[in-house]
Amino acid sequence: VRARGTKAGRKALWAGGYRSGPGKALAKISISHPFDRRLAAQDLAGSLAHARGLHRAGLLSRKDLAAIEAGLADIGGEIAEGSFRFEDTDEDVHMNVERRLSALSGEAGGRIHAGRSRNDQVALDLRLWTMAAIDRARVAIDALSLALVERAEDWLEKGIVVAARTHLRAAQPILLSHALLAYVEMLRRDTDRLADCRRRAAISPLGSGACAGTTLPIDRSAVAESLGLPAITENSLDAVSDRDFAAEFAFAAALAMVHLSRLAEDLILWTGEEFRVLRLPESATTGSSMMPQKKNPDSLELVRGKTGRAAGSLVSLLTTLKGLPLSYNRDLQETQEPLFAAADTLELSLAAMTEVVTGLTPRPARERAEIDAAALSTDVAEELVRRGAPFREAHGRVARWIRRAAQENTDFREVAAADEPKLATFLRRLTPETSVRARDLPGGTAPERVRERIRELRKVLRPARSAR
Amino acid sequence: VRARGTKAGRKALWAGGYRSGPGKALAKISISHPFDRRLAAQDLAGSLAHARGLHRAGLLSRKDLAAIEAGLADIGGEIAEGSFRFEDTDEDVHMNVERRLSALSGEAGGRIHAGRSRNDQVALDLRLWTMAAIDRARVAIDALSLALVERAEDWLEKGIVVAARTHLRAAQPILLSHALLAYVEMLRRDTDRLADCRRRAAISPLGSGACAGTTLPIDRSAVAESLGLPAITENSLDAVSDRDFAAEFAFAAALAMVHLSRLAEDLILWTGEEFRVLRLPESATTGSSMMPQKKNPDSLELVRGKTGRAAGSLVSLLTTLKGLPLSYNRDLQETQEPLFAAADTLELSLAAMTEVVTGLTPRPARERAEIDAAALSTDVAEELVRRGAPFREAHGRVARWIRRAAQENTDFREVAAADEPKLATFLRRLTPETSVRARDLPGGTAPERVRERIRELRKVLRPARSAR
Amino acid sequence: VRARGTKAGRKALWAGGYRSGPGKALAKISISHPFDRRLAAQDLAGSLAHARGLHRAGLLSRKDLAAIEAGLADIGGEIAEGSFRFEDTDEDVHMNVERRLSALSGEAGGRIHAGRSRNDQVALDLRLWTMAAIDRARVAIDALSLALVERAEDWLEKGIVVAARTHLRAAQPILLSHALLAYVEMLRRDTDRLADCRRRAAISPLGSGACAGTTLPIDRSAVAESLGLPAITENSLDAVSDRDFAAEFAFAAALAMVHLSRLAEDLILWTGEEFRVLRLPESATTGSSMMPQKKNPDSLELVRGKTGRAAGSLVSLLTTLKGLPLSYNRDLQETQEPLFAAADTLELSLAAMTEVVTGLTPRPARERAEIDAAALSTDVAEELVRRGAPFREAHGRVARWIRRAAQENTDFREVAAADEPKLATFLRRLTPETSVRARDLPGGTAPERVRERIRELRKVLRPARSAR
Amino acid sequence: VRARGTKAGRKALWAGGYRSGPGKALAKISISHPFDRRLAAQDLAGSLAHARGLHRAGLLSRKDLAAIEAGLADIGGEIAEGSFRFEDTDEDVHMNVERRLSALSGEAGGRIHAGRSRNDQVALDLRLWTMAAIDRARVAIDALSLALVERAEDWLEKGIVVAARTHLRAAQPILLSHALLAYVEMLRRDTDRLADCRRRAAISPLGSGACAGTTLPIDRSAVAESLGLPAITENSLDAVSDRDFAAEFAFAAALAMVHLSRLAEDLILWTGEEFRVLRLPESATTGSSMMPQKKNPDSLELVRGKTGRAAGSLVSLLTTLKGLPLSYNRDLQETQEPLFAAADTLELSLAAMTEVVTGLTPRPARERAEIDAAALSTDVAEELVRRGAPFREAHGRVARWIRRAAQENTDFREVAAADEPKLATFLRRLTPETSVRARDLPGGTAPERVRERIRELRKVLRPARSAR
Repeated sequence: VRARGTKAGRKALWAGGYRSGPGKALAKISISHPFDRRLAAQDLAGSLAHARGLHRAGLLSRKDLAAIEAGLADIGGEIAEGSFRFEDTDEDVHMNVERRLSALSGEAGGRIHAGRSRNDQVALDLRLWTMAAIDRARVAIDALSLALVERAEDWLEKGIVVAARTHLRAAQPILLSHALLAYVEMLRRDTDRLADCRRRAAISPLGSGACAGTTLPIDRSAVAESLGLPAITENSLDAVSDRDFAAEFAFAAALAMVHLSRLAEDLILWTGEEFRVLRLPESATTGSSMMPQKKNPDSLELVRGKTGRAAGSLVSLLTTLKGLPLSYNRDLQETQEPLFAAADTLELSLAAMTEVVTGLTPRPARERAEIDAAALSTDVAEELVRRGAPFREAHGRVARWIRRAAQENTDFREVAAADEPKLATFLRRLTPETSVRARDLPGGTAPERVRERIRELRKVLRPARSAR
Repeated sequence: VRARGTKAGRKALWAGGYRSGPGKALAKISISHPFDRRLAAQDLAGSLAHARGLHRAGLLSRKDLAAIEAGLADIGGEIAEGSFRFEDTDEDVHMNVERRLSALSGEAGGRIHAGRSRNDQVALDLRLWTMAAIDRARVAIDALSLALVERAEDWLEKGIVVAARTHLRAAQPILLSHALLAYVEMLRRDTDRLADCRRRAAISPLGSGACAGTTLPIDRSAVAESLGLPAITENSLDAVSDRDFAAEFAFAAALAMVHLSRLAEDLILWTGEEFRVLRLPESATTGSSMMPQKKNPDSLELVRGKTGRAAGSLVSLLTTLKGLPLSYNRDLQETQEPLFAAADTLELSLAAMTEVVTGLTPRPARERAEIDAAALSTDVAEELVRRGAPFREAHGRVARWIRRAAQENTDFREVAAADEPKLATFLRRLTPETSVRARDLPGGTAPERVRERIRELRKVLRPARSAR
Repeated sequence: VRARGTKAGRKALWAGGYRSGPGKALAKISISHPFDRRLAAQDLAGSLAHARGLHRAGLLSRKDLAAIEAGLADIGGEIAEGSFRFEDTDEDVHMNVERRLSALSGEAGGRIHAGRSRNDQVALDLRLWTMAAIDRARVAIDALSLALVERAEDWLEKGIVVAARTHLRAAQPILLSHALLAYVEMLRRDTDRLADCRRRAAISPLGSGACAGTTLPIDRSAVAESLGLPAITENSLDAVSDRDFAAEFAFAAALAMVHLSRLAEDLILWTGEEFRVLRLPESATTGSSMMPQKKNPDSLELVRGKTGRAAGSLVSLLTTLKGLPLSYNRDLQETQEPLFAAADTLELSLAAMTEVVTGLTPRPARERAEIDAAALSTDVAEELVRRGAPFREAHGRVARWIRRAAQENTDFREVAAADEPKLATFLRRLTPETSVRARDLPGGTAPERVRERIRELRKVLRPARSAR
Repeated sequence: VRARGTKAGRKALWAGGYRSGPGKALAKISISHPFDRRLAAQDLAGSLAHARGLHRAGLLSRKDLAAIEAGLADIGGEIAEGSFRFEDTDEDVHMNVERRLSALSGEAGGRIHAGRSRNDQVALDLRLWTMAAIDRARVAIDALSLALVERAEDWLEKGIVVAARTHLRAAQPILLSHALLAYVEMLRRDTDRLADCRRRAAISPLGSGACAGTTLPIDRSAVAESLGLPAITENSLDAVSDRDFAAEFAFAAALAMVHLSRLAEDLILWTGEEFRVLRLPESATTGSSMMPQKKNPDSLELVRGKTGRAAGSLVSLLTTLKGLPLSYNRDLQETQEPLFAAADTLELSLAAMTEVVTGLTPRPARERAEIDAAALSTDVAEELVRRGAPFREAHGRVARWIRRAAQENTDFREVAAADEPKLATFLRRLTPETSVRARDLPGGTAPERVRERIRELRKVLRPARSAR
């Protein structure tokens, strides 16, 4: 069976010099339209810009350009409504579009590939697609950030104080809002990284041809401009073989997923019966096929699990790119699915996480574990410092008070007050709430500091949202 | 919009304790039937075995069993012919099958989930699927091995001698067949690793329930036996959370892909205009959309590129599994797509590579580069050793002869013969062909050794094929 | 500065044909003895076996062999006592050993490299090293397994029942011992995989020379046998470029580390103030430089963190190997450090984990959270099945009882007994302890089943230990 | 044996509340000074800034500050000259420095840790270290870029035209300089990415304490400023657990290594006997221990191989970070070695590659393969387009001419001229040189375009160098 047998006698568009078609296995491994059809919108936009460039260069008549413009518009409509037929004779979205364009616009369609190659064409399509994926991801990141900020604001007003943890062990009292804002900071960096990546993606490779450019007098900068791209690539060999933007996007997505995995982990813990800090809305859980009582935090687990997919996509890209000689090699086709997977994973996960965060409610104070007095010990050591003790000595004294209190099964503040009567007043006034208020540096957990940061974040998050 | 709105009022099978359905984003991230429907055949086989186990345990009447058997058979038919409708109300293949079974077999269908959970059910399905994937992969590996052995046999008879390379630089003469057989050795190890993996996969988790087993008196070993599985898992918590077999399969696939990437690299080089060793059939190439003269080795490049996908799948699995607490966590759903991707990647690549190898033809001797005399230098050093010289001294002498020959632009054998007349006869007789014949140890490149290895390989490869 | 300037005028052993030395940067990137000196013991063993092979082949006199044997023994002593001087003139352990051998045993030393290359030599050394690393790892895995089994045995006698978790939410009651044994099952698979890897590593490449074998009449099998290796490689090109055993070891180590990361996660949770299941010995914690009260589970966190190192080592190996043409390429040097890192990571982590497990003590029952009645719901659904109800219906009924109980803030067993009086007796007798006893299938959590598995494990673990 | 037994009775600085020391295995897995001593310079700088901050806050007298300044300077000297003794009692560089500071400056040393924790301290040190590593890497990238530009400039003047390759098959003629500049474009992106990473790293976490800040009135911004850091972190929990900068650096390094691996691959091919484009200097090769004639391109292979190390480091970091709850967890210690390894790998590889490129010389024209006429076919198709033909038709015609020429064993230009006499003049004038000149778009290979780009690159590369 010949792969191109779908249409009797039909040959691939590039097959002028071929006697017969590709082998069966090659046809199978080679066909990419099942996934690269996701580039259709970008392919049409790029083709339109290129056709106009050909017209400006005097290589395409006004009439032919009009036919092509109409044809591309029709194809766009067919794809939108699902009636476009992708054929295996033409292995990818680019050839399928060109074939259909020729059918719709006659000879004009046969003129569109002058001065370009699939090599620069797919490079452009992938760049445009990546830019759009970044735009969607940034909107979604801002939505999650805002959901976190809104919870933080609400719970700040409620004054919810919990134990911050290091090593998953109670460390010091903080506002619960402060913990939420930690995740907003991570997301801010994610969106910054994506913006940097977008800047490096927004460069037009059109005019690089197969690898050495073209002899036709196309105005590359004008074509780029018509696509909204501020710059053109500087070297044709590099332009057709560069997938840095895909790898960089995959990295930014993987690191963002690492952040979501951490938030997922924390929320799984905080909403559990043991930590008892928050409640998950029923709508963020699913049941068990066997155990009637179950309400499991599936959204959170799936997000945490999907971190693997994002890391895998990144590794796929780097492994595929390693050791490739100049310039375009077909290996590069294998960069598409990981790129798409990274974007899908991130988008799906951000939406799921935003839904969860939006539905979170704090448990009533009586359900939450009381903060153990020992979590106040750093405050005491720092008080000793304020009174003149070297910190290392203060640390040792407090540590010994705590050890003694544990042996005597009492509150270390009592042991301390007995040992150091001058501290008695300070110790009596020392509560999780005063401790939180005392951490009054920028970036600290004092209510005023948290409120200030919320105010700043609301400012950056508001315009980012309305801009879209 | 509620996700389960596809059927008005319909609730997930597990949702007895729920007031309303999952959130929109949870529904979206949670639905797995678009990919886990690949487990349908395994799910039906497992359900059949489980139903029979329930019957044997007295928990299912003969009549109900018959109804279930008929229902499962019908579902199998519907899936085979594509008429089975997967609904989003039930997020995965397991619940879709159970729902349909209840529709087909009435109350009997409602009895099938006794004593099991999706947790042990999906563990079983994935194990059975992995075993089948291994079986397919091993057949495909043997097919490629045989294609290589057949070429090796043919070219051995033609006596094709080429320069073996280390560091991609000419090293010593070898039979071209010897190089092909090197790849067969790699593939032998791949098939061994897959066999080991299959052994560890072929263990039944059924009866482990959600995580702690079941209180119903099911005969786990009998159920396993009816599935052709020689053993049962030893710990119910481990049984539902173990995906080692998936990770191990992904590793075996990734390493096999590394081997194919190496073969692809060598064949891209050997069939190029510069190395001129082999010819690629036109059917293993595709053309360029821009450059009329092109016939590119796409199959080989795609295989090499796909190595990234396999490595990425492995990383996905390991990352997802890292740090999960006991026992089942929903993160485990994310192990499925990488498993499927690893299997697909390997299968597609093996078929493509087999097609390429089958079509390879050696170039005529006049086109191949002559083997440079310097590639014979080790033979001379070893001859000096046979005549009593320490090897290190012999190595130095020959090296200096070669350096002198390069300066004088002559054959180093002449320099050597002038400097050491006793070697003259040996040097005169020294050709790439005699050099090859002289490497007559097991594993060496002498024709008799290569022939012997081909004989052995044909023996192991023949039964492996007919067994399927 | 010339790299070989350490000894005036000294040239590398392979540099007979060179006018001058390597460039400064090449010298720096090329020097491997700082890490490959870990192969010294293997290099000496391999050299001894090879020298004896040369003697048997008539290529080394008895006297020269004796000189070499003495020289190698001396070098072994020097390395053991730390007096061996590695020089940069000779970039790796192999050349350093040969250089020193020549210094110690005169001309005999110059004879040892006949019929071998560093390519087969390093392949052998790495195989022997990997085998030794596997042996150490398997002993350490067994030690951890035994520590877990001993705790399991002890706590079985104490009858400690806890809630098993799925999705980190209470699922069903189990014996705490049952959870420990889940980890032993993972470790059993790890040791199996390592054994398979060892089998594939235990093959001698000696006699494969640089890539095409040797013309000298060495008895490869006899040499292999003298090294305790049961087989020889079948293809010289493959033999010098095969690092599958390193990748396979790295995978087995990475998956074992994933298991340890899961155990670490569980133990961090179980020993925390929220879960309150176990106590960590103080000796498994470290304090904080700032917070006087802290005792952090550092061992466990470090083990969990080190999973990244193991996964990274595996990726390093696969990436390095991807796309390499036949046969030996210098890229292969980069397989050594990841191999060493994987082994070190695993060994260090197993020791740390064994220490932790050995020191674990259960908290008194009064400190542990009581098992919520809802965790018994599956027992009730299964009881309904025993009484004839279809499971799906039983599941729904119980789920609704639980929902009602939650609304009424009561125990669902009371709701159930009111709704279904026939169940009253069953419900009254239903406790976590009876629930555990009822899960009496192989692999289940019933005390008899757990006791039985402990007995079996003790049998396999005992000889494994004494065998070393 | 207790780990802290190195000094009788000595306790870790944090061990005030401990009865005894860490277990043996914990001590072993916990000790990090063998690698984190690389942070010593950063630790001293951070400690100095912090001490001055304490002084400004009134928490440290002028005298104590002077003692600390002197102590830190002494420690810097001891470390520089190698006399500083790292003790295992104190597991890391931070505690070792504090211990020594106390020994040198008495009670003042005990005061330095007020208001800080190792958690913010190590975060600072790693940020400063990463910034320094980026600075070194960028200088090295510019050095390699300049070496490539210089070669490109030289060979442009020599007018060396070679076949550009796609799919490793001859595509179209280009200037060899154009290929070198493709790599410079990749390096430009690498340096941009590193600059972005540096910007995100240059933020001070000091004042974040263990996780919740400090109650002492330190001026965080002033401390940051004294370290040359333009900003402070915004959330104390995030500040101590953020290692994004390390992951981002590892990614930038991994992608840069991918670029170097591609250059290495190309240079291995171009300098080989088959491609015959360039010559490698002897100083970039090493010999074989067995084969006297060998000069292997080791630098290039090692660089290509090291790509695996960089990818592995990135995976290590992402895997380690996945799923960590807030805030600092000891797992984070495992981010250091991969960070260091990524930096070392990149730096070593850039130096090796610069050395190779600097020594490259083109082979004389007579040795290089002539460019096959078929590589000019796109020029002909584009000429037909200029004369009014649709490109797709032109492509097909030229393809058929080439196929016919191959059958008739002639130059396709003759077939074309016979078939289309109007093209005869164009075809007669068509040579690789005219083809190169005709690709005269920005980014194209025409000499004027290449010259222009060299001019631009020289401009950016010059100041970058002199700035350091």
